[in-house]
Amino acid sequence: MFTFPKPDVEELLQSISIIDFAVSPDEKQLLFCSNFSGKYNLWGMDLPNAFPYRLTFNDQPSEGLLYDKEGRFVIAGFDQDGDENTQFYALKPHGGALKQVVYQESTRNFNPLLSKDGERLYYTSSKGNPSYLNSYCLDLRTGEETTVLEGSGGATYIAEVSEDETTILYSKHFTNTNSLYYAKVGDEEILLTPPTDQEHTVSFAVLVSPTEVYLVTDYEADFSYLAKFDLETKTFTKVKEVSKEGFTTLTYDKENQILYIIAEKGVEDRLYAYHLEDGTWERIEIPCDLIGKLVVAKSGSLYLLGRGSTKLGNIYKREQGEWVQLTRNKMAGVAEEDFIAPKVVTYPSFDGLEIEALFYQPKEEHDKGEIILWPHGGPQHAERKSFNAIFQYFLSNGYSIFAPNFRGSTGYGLAFTKMVERAWGAGPRLDHIAGLDWLIEQGYGSKGEFIVMGGSYGGYMSLLLHGRHADYFKAVIDVCGPSNLFSFISSVPEDWKPVMDAWVGHPEKDREKLIEYSPSTYVDQMTKPMLVVQGANDPRVVQAESDQIVEALKEKGRDITYIVMEDEGHGFAKKENEIAVFRQILAFMEEHAGRKVNV
Amino acid sequence: MFTFPKPDVEELLQSISIIDFAVSPDEKQLLFCSNFSGKYNLWGMDLPNAFPYRLTFNDQPSEGLLYDKEGRFVIAGFDQDGDENTQFYALKPHGGALKQVVYQESTRNFNPLLSKDGERLYYTSSKGNPSYLNSYCLDLRTGEETTVLEGSGGATYIAEVSEDETTILYSKHFTNTNSLYYAKVGDEEILLTPPTDQEHTVSFAVLVSPTEVYLVTDYEADFSYLAKFDLETKTFTKVKEVSKEGFTTLTYDKENQILYIIAEKGVEDRLYAYHLEDGTWERIEIPCDLIGKLVVAKSGSLYLLGRGSTKLGNIYKREQGEWVQLTRNKMAGVAEEDFIAPKVVTYPSFDGLEIEALFYQPKEEHDKGEIILWPHGGPQHAERKSFNAIFQYFLSNGYSIFAPNFRGSTGYGLAFTKMVERAWGAGPRLDHIAGLDWLIEQGYGSKGEFIVMGGSYGGYMSLLLHGRHADYFKAVIDVCGPSNLFSFISSVPEDWKPVMDAWVGHPEKDREKLIEYSPSTYVDQMTKPMLVVQGANDPRVVQAESDQIVEALKEKGRDITYIVMEDEGHGFAKKENEIAVFRQILAFMEEHAGRKVNV
Repeated sequence: MFTFPKPDVEELLQSISIIDFAVSPDEKQLLFCSNFSGKYNLWGMDLPNAFPYRLTFNDQPSEGLLYDKEGRFVIAGFDQDGDENTQFYALKPHGGALKQVVYQESTRNFNPLLSKDGERLYYTSSKGNPSYLNSYCLDLRTGEETTVLEGSGGATYIAEVSEDETTILYSKHFTNTNSLYYAKVGDEEILLTPPTDQEHTVSFAVLVSPTEVYLVTDYEADFSYLAKFDLETKTFTKVKEVSKEGFTTLTYDKENQILYIIAEKGVEDRLYAYHLEDGTWERIEIPCDLIGKLVVAKSGSLYLLGRGSTKLGNIYKREQGEWVQLTRNKMAGVAEEDFIAPKVVTYPSFDGLEIEALFYQPKEEHDKGEIILWPHGGPQHAERKSFNAIFQYFLSNGYSIFAPNFRGSTGYGLAFTKMVERAWGAGPRLDHIAGLDWLIEQGYGSKGEFIVMGGSYGGYMSLLLHGRHADYFKAVIDVCGPSNLFSFISSVPEDWKPVMDAWVGHPEKDREKLIEYSPSTYVDQMTKPMLVVQGANDPRVVQAESDQIVEALKEKGRDITYIVMEDEGHGFAKKENEIAVFRQILAFMEEHAGRKVNV
Repeated sequence: MFTFPKPDVEELLQSISIIDFAVSPDEKQLLFCSNFSGKYNLWGMDLPNAFPYRLTFNDQPSEGLLYDKEGRFVIAGFDQDGDENTQFYALKPHGGALKQVVYQESTRNFNPLLSKDGERLYYTSSKGNPSYLNSYCLDLRTGEETTVLEGSGGATYIAEVSEDETTILYSKHFTNTNSLYYAKVGDEEILLTPPTDQEHTVSFAVLVSPTEVYLVTDYEADFSYLAKFDLETKTFTKVKEVSKEGFTTLTYDKENQILYIIAEKGVEDRLYAYHLEDGTWERIEIPCDLIGKLVVAKSGSLYLLGRGSTKLGNIYKREQGEWVQLTRNKMAGVAEEDFIAPKVVTYPSFDGLEIEALFYQPKEEHDKGEIILWPHGGPQHAERKSFNAIFQYFLSNGYSIFAPNFRGSTGYGLAFTKMVERAWGAGPRLDHIAGLDWLIEQGYGSKGEFIVMGGSYGGYMSLLLHGRHADYFKAVIDVCGPSNLFSFISSVPEDWKPVMDAWVGHPEKDREKLIEYSPSTYVDQMTKPMLVVQGANDPRVVQAESDQIVEALKEKGRDITYIVMEDEGHGFAKKENEIAVFRQILAFMEEHAGRKVNV
């Protein structure tokens, strides 16, 4: 009857996200955090009905959503417009005014945990120990607070408190590739992996009985596996590994004595169940490529927030072995099959190291022959099969996207991940150039015709590539990227600073390298049009990082556009900002691809 | 554990509304119009799942939501920011870009109807006949359009087209208390009520077979009843009446041969089923006080949008005789039982006529002893048991609300409704004063201490009461009220103009009365602080109505505040405007109640 206009690419910018959820102990309510109303707020659903009602009006995304076990209240953390000074609030499960529970201005607060009776809140805070953090127990009835952990050596986070509150599991984070777990039993502090000089990580640990801890570690291995630690005998035992998969998360079903394990297999996730009683191991099919969160209810029911390269984030419940989709977050007028999935490609880097990349190509009829190189953030992170509305937006506008998991990325083993440490601008940079050369060889693009765009470390890499390889690019977009590693390492949050030497470098000992790796060293060679975007409240990459490079380039009369978002931190939490910025980025790209659009 | 702050009254302003819905022929999808995202848009649900996904992004409420019977597309009407120049668009049932179907700038378009095969759209338009309207049939395949009705005598609206498209039901609206229905069968035009000089209304008619029409009329009665008209024998038969209830709407279940009848019983609705096959009549309990919309699916399933004085609007489905609530629109942190229900009171007016009023009183602990007199709009309308977040907002702030169904209101019979005609400022005004005197007698309030607030006719009445009875009030709020009946009757939409003589008065023949009834006549006596709110796009009460009274009072140096909403029409369609204005209204009230608040 009607020929409908093809999906308006503008609508892709309107996609909403579900970023966290929790299920009430009786499974009658599900809370989730979503930008349904343009800004993030908490919403509730009365299961099995899925119609959401709004619970908060503060327009901030929540952190650490936690039900009181008797369902009397919910604890949620909120920062202010991206400043990451998360504070904890209580609210009634059906919403209403927020009550401040932990509110200590200019502190960073983490990992809220409730005692079984819901009367004590354990949490980690920068209060009193900004570099290494302390953990506290707040009596919610009396307001009295005691210190339960004093951080030292590395940022020290509380992870679990046993039901009788005599055992505490906690982690020490030295770097992203060097982190340990401990149990504090009374006054005894027990390291959960055998002592060794070799750096490794323990990324998760759970108590399954007063004396048994299961953990995920890459102790003496390249990929993380499941291990067990006996607190009485102090014995560490490897339990289960899967080749080329790195385990990341444990979720314990006490009712059925099952440990659920999420594993990273390159750009996808896997879910496994390990039955403690008989040691059986099974893979559980998931309705998505990636698991954002897995929750096991008291009854043993599984709830999952999942997404994929062509699937928006949605919440599912497992019933009789089948995943039932509870939420129906979808994109107006665009069917799942109309989204573009990436090809997973590999190419050899300058030194022969194999690099995996996601390569998104627009439908032939839209293809403009333009390629965006997308260095991901982190850098110890990965570009994986996650729905990305912005990618779909650029694809619909005819742009290809090439996103390599350069050395330093996660998902390819510990050794691979470590390769970016104190080498931010070395191998990873050349992996990007090798990727572009591969694209040229394959006939996809031409030198000088690429666009580079990235955020955070990806913004840093965009700047560095611009400064050192300007001849590959015609336009550069940097979203909150560090421009000068010296000022960057001195301006990160206090609890990040102990990590900086091993992660980025020491300002004196590594002076030459930091100069070599700093984009600001190459201002003279940054000759291509550039767009810089920065959140004014960003505590990770502070505004001065963008200010200084913009200032330097302006002084040289270069073609530079600068957007500062006053109410954002490290990224976008407000739909209207995101839409405005990405419209402007598209216009900028179109201009330098010889096209003009109105914004 | 926690003493939560009492519900933040601000949250009451955040309540969302569901104002329209439609169900797909296969009942697998439900569309609804809601301001979930702050502005009205269409949302969908994949039944039985109730999680909504957004379908439109134009931020306008829809009119005349209509499914193609094969589910290929949906027709929806949208105006622009309240200008009421509704145009019709098609969209895919899962959303996306809108396609213009009927788009004729500066025309008003009404009552879209689809042919059974979905290939022709019938509708009524001001195009070509701005006073009386024409109806057209647009071939959606070829774009060809034919005129099927030429309006004359009164605004002429198409109401139904028979399946074979040989019979058209249409109505002629002379005034709100004088309207007729006709059937056009081929070239024959058949009046569906017997000829009479006595004014009456036919408010609804449906074809149940090629020759049988059921209708709702108050022909030779004070309250509307169900009647039948035989198109062959031309016989009119009264079928069913219920004492003191006025029938308003018919919904026909062809599958089961049932007519559903909505009846007004004063401030509440009733629902009845009339079984055509055996003539049985039953009352159906409803889960609400008022029915916003009733839809019968092809299968015979009933869907209802209902609300009540303490119930937000929600959609229900009837299953096995029980109403199942599909949507869970509720207010954060406020339970239904925390809302205040009105008392229904009656008082004798100046001439002994009994007036029914809704009287909302705050909880004792909040009560400030302040009373807001609320003259409703219309005026041929009524204040009924409808959830009103704004009322709850004022109640939570300690204000009582007194809302009389003054003479002219609907729900109390045709004669009562007619009492406002050509007497806008006569009896209805004195009914309000009698209400205030009753409140004083009962000890609720004192002369000089009342606040009056109203919108549309209620704004007019607020102005008039201010001008003629200033000694009763300490503050006055007028939202888009006509201030001068001469300019008002010449500035309404063209299709309203034929109604004006009988409804308001003739500028020459009724000159003296119109002067007497115009608030602008009493500018000198308007001595109390006043707040005026107006939508710039309002086509019913144009901005000049507010401009002129504000200007006149400013010239006299009176205490007057004026708010013009640039992107609104006759009322509020955008949450942020509504919130901003009602915060300011509250601040204004508090100021004149001797209190100050920040906005």
